[in-house]
Amino acid sequence: MSSQKEYLEQNKERFVEELFELLRIPSISADSAYKNDVLKTADAVAESLRKAGAENVEICETPGYPIVYADKIVDPSLPTVLVYGHYDVQPPDPLDLWTTEPFEPVIRKTEIHPDGAIFARGACDDKGQMFMHVKALEVMNQTGTLACNVKFMIEGEEEVGSENLGWFVSRNQEKLAADVILISDTGMIANDSPSITTGLRGLSYVEVKVTGPNRDLHSGLYGGAVANPINVLTNMIASLQDDNKHITIPGFYEDVQELSDAEREAMAKAPFNLDNYKKALDLSDVDGELGYSTMERASIRPTLDVNGIWGGYQGEGAKTVIPSWAKAKISMRLVPHQEPGKITELFQKHFEAIAPKSVKVEVTPHHGGLPYVSPTDDPGYRAASKAMEDSFGKTPVPVRSGGSIPIVALFEKELGLKSILMGFGLDSDAIHSPNEHYGLFNYYKGIETIPHFFKHFAALKSE
Amino acid sequence: MSSQKEYLEQNKERFVEELFELLRIPSISADSAYKNDVLKTADAVAESLRKAGAENVEICETPGYPIVYADKIVDPSLPTVLVYGHYDVQPPDPLDLWTTEPFEPVIRKTEIHPDGAIFARGACDDKGQMFMHVKALEVMNQTGTLACNVKFMIEGEEEVGSENLGWFVSRNQEKLAADVILISDTGMIANDSPSITTGLRGLSYVEVKVTGPNRDLHSGLYGGAVANPINVLTNMIASLQDDNKHITIPGFYEDVQELSDAEREAMAKAPFNLDNYKKALDLSDVDGELGYSTMERASIRPTLDVNGIWGGYQGEGAKTVIPSWAKAKISMRLVPHQEPGKITELFQKHFEAIAPKSVKVEVTPHHGGLPYVSPTDDPGYRAASKAMEDSFGKTPVPVRSGGSIPIVALFEKELGLKSILMGFGLDSDAIHSPNEHYGLFNYYKGIETIPHFFKHFAALKSE
Repeated sequence: MSSQKEYLEQNKERFVEELFELLRIPSISADSAYKNDVLKTADAVAESLRKAGAENVEICETPGYPIVYADKIVDPSLPTVLVYGHYDVQPPDPLDLWTTEPFEPVIRKTEIHPDGAIFARGACDDKGQMFMHVKALEVMNQTGTLACNVKFMIEGEEEVGSENLGWFVSRNQEKLAADVILISDTGMIANDSPSITTGLRGLSYVEVKVTGPNRDLHSGLYGGAVANPINVLTNMIASLQDDNKHITIPGFYEDVQELSDAEREAMAKAPFNLDNYKKALDLSDVDGELGYSTMERASIRPTLDVNGIWGGYQGEGAKTVIPSWAKAKISMRLVPHQEPGKITELFQKHFEAIAPKSVKVEVTPHHGGLPYVSPTDDPGYRAASKAMEDSFGKTPVPVRSGGSIPIVALFEKELGLKSILMGFGLDSDAIHSPNEHYGLFNYYKGIETIPHFFKHFAALKSE
Repeated sequence: MSSQKEYLEQNKERFVEELFELLRIPSISADSAYKNDVLKTADAVAESLRKAGAENVEICETPGYPIVYADKIVDPSLPTVLVYGHYDVQPPDPLDLWTTEPFEPVIRKTEIHPDGAIFARGACDDKGQMFMHVKALEVMNQTGTLACNVKFMIEGEEEVGSENLGWFVSRNQEKLAADVILISDTGMIANDSPSITTGLRGLSYVEVKVTGPNRDLHSGLYGGAVANPINVLTNMIASLQDDNKHITIPGFYEDVQELSDAEREAMAKAPFNLDNYKKALDLSDVDGELGYSTMERASIRPTLDVNGIWGGYQGEGAKTVIPSWAKAKISMRLVPHQEPGKITELFQKHFEAIAPKSVKVEVTPHHGGLPYVSPTDDPGYRAASKAMEDSFGKTPVPVRSGGSIPIVALFEKELGLKSILMGFGLDSDAIHSPNEHYGLFNYYKGIETIPHFFKHFAALKSE
């Protein structure tokens, strides 16, 4: 057994305990009520990096939440790996659907995780995966096997669009200088079929408000004579997609990168079972854009989803009211080479254009993110591939993910660096959902794999 | 000055104070959290009837909230007027739009009410209008001018569909025996143009739930591949009306009573100013069924309004989620001779039929109510017309209202009695809305007019 594996074996219980401490802090960046908890989490991350052997640990202030920086330079002549992760989490609601408290981590066995999984908000996204890198550093440090230099950049605003990361990166290009960026904030196909994410969707997120009468009205006295903002909003949203689930916003598909048949065939080879997929979600049928497979709809095609809608009376019983307004949160996932700013503008222009004269419409852009595609032939990808081979005994397959990590495009632009998306989560981990969890197998496997990446990357760079 | 008018003048401040006490109790029948307050209000109404001179005051239990009964039989050979009203109120939300507390009544002057108006939930609908009858009884009693027998039936479930009133009425036909029913729970055109409501719309109210995946999903990993319950719900609701705002539910218009051109011409004569109407609601335009005027859309045509909608993330910031479900409360106003039970069935059948295979749909009927048309040539209507002539110095015009008082149809069926809808509210009173209010002028005018009705009704019946 290698010294690294031995060290991991001897300390695995403690590694879980330390992660639990991090998971207990509700670092919800979307809700300002949790500001102190987010800040507390930054401190905890910094402290854990110090303990793991990092040097120059700093909590770097930004106009928003701070970014935790740390590094360990073993030899300036060696290549440098910049690790990115985030310490903030999604809001936990709906709370009533959690089996156990979102911020009181527990271990439960599941069908997919017979060795047990850690249930807590952020267990997988991204505290659990980020913390693997902290523990991997400890392993390499304690076993004297750190094969190249390492830098950490852990932010606290990923779940709200990394609004100040660009500000920070552009001001610290020298500090962040590296040869590759390594990120574990994605998933793999299954515990017995490792994969590396080579593509991500971008994001455009807007909030819309439709206002009708200047006050709530009695639906008997005014019903039929005054436009109902909820009815109008449902009409407007419905009109944004046609019967083939094609998005009707003029110019929306203009820049969409169409995949070649060869690429689509390659995608179709990835293991996927539609019946299991439907069964896992308790769906009698899937639904999506005509002419594309479920895998394609979820990765290489843009989307338009209403993430939230509200207006009028939502309480017990029946209230006969025409509300003064109705609101919705709408997000569009983007694919290469759609540009979030442009899509948001197209949406806003179109949404305002289709509004009937009987209402007022407001469109408020939230955050956006660029889509991304990574190469599969550079030292970074090859090192990740070999590292997973070492730990899984299998060559990982490259896959496109439907999720968004807006900042990988930003890193490329600001730092001229490619990001390697070596994630260890599973789609079934329920990130952004109640009962989010992360397999102990995956957590340990990550801590085992990361040092292999460092070893192979150093070697490949010195070739 | 008549003895009645004199008594009113001498006691008007107290009459307002006593109403304030009733308005301070939050008798919200739709929300079970206010159960004790609703019951407390029943007691207060009973006590006020006793003080006003009523006999046989009873709080009659029902499977739901109790009904307050009282009577004063001056002479069995005289005709009897049965007064109906309700002591429950609508929920006050949205609370943040109230200028003063909904259950702390205050008097403020407004453009339409230069003498001042009482601001409070229930000020007009219906505590204020119901209490006019209690005070009118006191006036007639104290001045020895009660011209015929009177019975009171004040319920506590009107705002939730009077679910147990039918149960009560069918069991107490003898107790409730009368010659006419008098109700003040409607409005008039303006303080200088009195009117009497001769028609009401019916109501069918349903709650719908669209369920997609068995849990909230990450909109990046699943977006585009799984039907989003909110998108589906907006599509389904939008499809319930065509571009001409015609309702698309098969059979919906089957029983709709079409008015003759003559009737429509008569309606068009009622004073109405579209610009003022739009200005009062801050609307750049009205919207409704093609081929009908605003007045017609709001009274003689059926409607379909979403009274509330909710699903997904409604908090601060952005959450990229595909929710597991979305819900809406939908009400349809009905016109003679549409039948609520039948319409609810048609809705449910259609809504389930148009649901895509990718979701599950539940339709839960709330309450319903039959539409109603009252005659204008019987003693009841003529007595009301003469009574308003006496107090306003103007003959009131008959108008159709868009609102619903489901129980007037029930009274006709169970008691064989017509209801006279002599209301003193105004459309601008904001009933069911924040800042509901009721003009002092209207409150006093009602107390002045009701005894005239008794006098004229007794006379007309003895002709």
